[in-house]
Amino acid sequence: MLLAKQWIRRVTALLWLALGLAFAIQAQAQSRPEVYSGKPAKYVFLFIGDGMASAQRTSAEYFMAAEKGMDKPGIVKLTMNSFPVQGITTTYSLNSVISDSGAAGTALACGVKSYNGAIGVDGSKTPVKTVAEMAKERGMKVGIVSTVSLDHATPASFYSHQVTRNNYYEISLSAPASGFDYFAGGGFKDPTGKKTKTEGEKPNLLDRFKAAGYAMPATREEILGLKKGQAKVLAINPVLDEDKAMPYAVDADLSKEVSLAQFTAKGAELLDNPKGFFMMIEGGKVDWACHANDAVGSIKDVLALDEAVGVAVDFAKKHPAETLIVVTGDHECGGMSLGFAGTKYGNYYQYLKNQKMSFAAFTDRLKEYKKATPADKARLEDLADLIKDSFGLTIPTGADLEAMKKSPKPDENITSPVDPYGMFLKAYEVAMVQDAFKRSMAGVGEKSEDPAEYLRYGEYEPLAVTLTHIMDSKAGLAWTTYSHTGMPVMTSAMGVGAQSFEGYYDNTDLSKRLMSILNPGRKMAAL
Amino acid sequence: MLLAKQWIRRVTALLWLALGLAFAIQAQAQSRPEVYSGKPAKYVFLFIGDGMASAQRTSAEYFMAAEKGMDKPGIVKLTMNSFPVQGITTTYSLNSVISDSGAAGTALACGVKSYNGAIGVDGSKTPVKTVAEMAKERGMKVGIVSTVSLDHATPASFYSHQVTRNNYYEISLSAPASGFDYFAGGGFKDPTGKKTKTEGEKPNLLDRFKAAGYAMPATREEILGLKKGQAKVLAINPVLDEDKAMPYAVDADLSKEVSLAQFTAKGAELLDNPKGFFMMIEGGKVDWACHANDAVGSIKDVLALDEAVGVAVDFAKKHPAETLIVVTGDHECGGMSLGFAGTKYGNYYQYLKNQKMSFAAFTDRLKEYKKATPADKARLEDLADLIKDSFGLTIPTGADLEAMKKSPKPDENITSPVDPYGMFLKAYEVAMVQDAFKRSMAGVGEKSEDPAEYLRYGEYEPLAVTLTHIMDSKAGLAWTTYSHTGMPVMTSAMGVGAQSFEGYYDNTDLSKRLMSILNPGRKMAAL
Repeated sequence: MLLAKQWIRRVTALLWLALGLAFAIQAQAQSRPEVYSGKPAKYVFLFIGDGMASAQRTSAEYFMAAEKGMDKPGIVKLTMNSFPVQGITTTYSLNSVISDSGAAGTALACGVKSYNGAIGVDGSKTPVKTVAEMAKERGMKVGIVSTVSLDHATPASFYSHQVTRNNYYEISLSAPASGFDYFAGGGFKDPTGKKTKTEGEKPNLLDRFKAAGYAMPATREEILGLKKGQAKVLAINPVLDEDKAMPYAVDADLSKEVSLAQFTAKGAELLDNPKGFFMMIEGGKVDWACHANDAVGSIKDVLALDEAVGVAVDFAKKHPAETLIVVTGDHECGGMSLGFAGTKYGNYYQYLKNQKMSFAAFTDRLKEYKKATPADKARLEDLADLIKDSFGLTIPTGADLEAMKKSPKPDENITSPVDPYGMFLKAYEVAMVQDAFKRSMAGVGEKSEDPAEYLRYGEYEPLAVTLTHIMDSKAGLAWTTYSHTGMPVMTSAMGVGAQSFEGYYDNTDLSKRLMSILNPGRKMAAL
Repeated sequence: MLLAKQWIRRVTALLWLALGLAFAIQAQAQSRPEVYSGKPAKYVFLFIGDGMASAQRTSAEYFMAAEKGMDKPGIVKLTMNSFPVQGITTTYSLNSVISDSGAAGTALACGVKSYNGAIGVDGSKTPVKTVAEMAKERGMKVGIVSTVSLDHATPASFYSHQVTRNNYYEISLSAPASGFDYFAGGGFKDPTGKKTKTEGEKPNLLDRFKAAGYAMPATREEILGLKKGQAKVLAINPVLDEDKAMPYAVDADLSKEVSLAQFTAKGAELLDNPKGFFMMIEGGKVDWACHANDAVGSIKDVLALDEAVGVAVDFAKKHPAETLIVVTGDHECGGMSLGFAGTKYGNYYQYLKNQKMSFAAFTDRLKEYKKATPADKARLEDLADLIKDSFGLTIPTGADLEAMKKSPKPDENITSPVDPYGMFLKAYEVAMVQDAFKRSMAGVGEKSEDPAEYLRYGEYEPLAVTLTHIMDSKAGLAWTTYSHTGMPVMTSAMGVGAQSFEGYYDNTDLSKRLMSILNPGRKMAAL
């Protein structure tokens, strides 16, 4: 009897313990301590959409719904937006509410606020160890992937320490010196450095990569043919633009190129090893498209990044108890808004399907025309076909104008079926295009000192940016700047330690949480 | 020995059970089932910032930091943004990517997608039971609080069922008929209804409230003097604007008025009872300020709402195991962006401190001037003092212009100390103001058919909206529309069942999750 009573008392105590444990875990999930006490993640994917905030993500979802021909308004969810954990992350830097990619990359890589332009250094210009370097120290393999050049601010912040992002050559030398295992995507802007009188020729970056034992596959086939077990790799996309970045996704030719998703899959294959890996994958041209106020350019690069996220999710399905995937943005760009004064309560994402190339590809075509045409012979009419082929936009003739007057207007309060004249320019839009054409042909505008002109064109080719503005406004999208903004971004997480990324927190805290999950109990330390 | 072994086996089994239970709770937190299986929340606060998305919240945080005179860029966190759970909520309606407050209110109240303009009815115009009505059925007390009129779309969606939001009289009659316990904030737009030949005079709304047993305190003192135990109450702010809304927070005189926080505190006091309560509190004029592109108007109303959220948090501290607080927005409004082309990477929130009244109060002053001044005598110079007093904006004279040329420009890449000429209008801004003044004086513009003119002024008094545009752009803020947008909003939650509001989900799912927490296991049903 005594034993039975004791036994009951002990079981009761244990049940209370169980209940307590459950509550403790629940409470921990709610308070999200900065020091992670779980199991470290073995496989870590950190995706960064440069310039990607909520507007960039959601516009891509509305675009997919329009592409699918959904009969009711709605979204097709991005993979990243389907993650169980969605947090909000602030992005201001040490010296500006609006961060550049250097300060933002440094915040994400090192967990410190720094000044705009900083690369892996804090506000006093002292190098700070990056989460990628910590992973390397732990014996994990490390990969750095970006659609823009690998010496650009975001990827550079994970493997280099420079007082300014403009030290492209010095940044690039840090890559082979890092001992990281996989560099992939874009190229390098300054692989030779400036020749100086005192130093003479400087070491060539690619020689350094070779000396450090990196394989350098040159073609799509060689890159995709790399096999597990291959030691260190530098895999540059066979097609690069003049800034050594991969082309915009909307312009990509995947018969010759490697997609961001393919670079991610190849990275996971090559980096997989018993000690795990850390891979940072940047969709860098979301930002560039948004600087130029090109919604389709942004959307297609968001979708390319999301495809890469899908690769990581497939990997996580095979290693569910060991993988962490985090997707964030470093800042918003362009002040992208999903509503435009002229379209009121309407949105017409289906119009965006007509855009067949990026603003950059259109700018190249425009430059060819400028080169071939004497200024006094230039006529907007010459470009009407190119404008229609590129954007679907039509400059109406007299007959069109009459028909447009008689055509029923779409209901501005709802997402109407496409108005047959929706892609025709309205009178004030024609005036905008004509003015921009004149500026483009005169070669002024790109560097104008007139503040009102800067508001219209930024530093872009006036006709190109005017056409994307009109294109986007017809869909009901608009922009407020050619720079970044102070908007917070969305952070999505799934897998080991994902709950740590809940809530509304700073980009430096995102980094600290990531570091904790890689090094349970570890505090950040200076290099 | 046998007993000891058995005992050890049993303890081991129990430990496994405990571990399993802990994992199950953790797993449940991650998958967020739509049917809530925990304890129902006894006290539920649902705050809705009308037109409040991430930009509206974060701009208020930067504003507070500027007000505090912080020496580095940063934010002062809103109470709502400090909640442990932050989700992202999509807002599109049944017939438009861009929702109105009727469809959005109905989604939040009833958990169904409906068409723009709907009030508590689904797409087939069938009434759907609201979460507030469910709470009432459970024996909870119910409160409906708004800064705009109580028959406006958002509050109406919680207690009325009408095919259009414009049925103000019919909506208002649902209020006394609902049996809800506390209506507070704004008034009613149409308390008498239209007199018709067949029906003659219609019943007066206030008679209905009286007949239904509602106390109707008339003064600030009477409202604040209401005591616990008081039966049903209709408490209308003693000061209302022409739309029967409370004044903008920036214009409020709290010596005569009751703040939203006070209405919330009084509600919690009056509604508290053993069966608990559900209270919906709307910050309705965030939306109105954003329609008019008035950032300070929006920010001050967000802060007023956040103060009310603070009241709920204080209440929750006294009832931590029984309270759920959810804060969301119904949609974004204005396409508010935290960056402007003209200020590039700079933000100057400190300039916003100069704005002393809402666009609406300024418009009233402008109307007085218009009334008193013959059109041919109207001069912009007459308004220079009013403009300076209202917004801090100065129209420069010849001497100012010379000094401005010599003054060092602020560094556009950082958040600089205030430029001494920062609040002086630039030449192109003076031209904008002069044009707007002419339009305002001529009385055109407000209903112009010229699409380009609509882009400049919307349907607002041209001078007023031009001044808020300039004001905001000087701070580095900008707008893209006078309507709502398709942006998702932030949803914050704390307390009982808060974890259910994590992730990226639809506004109808927000409502369903709320219903589940009130009625564990219950599925939504038609009325």
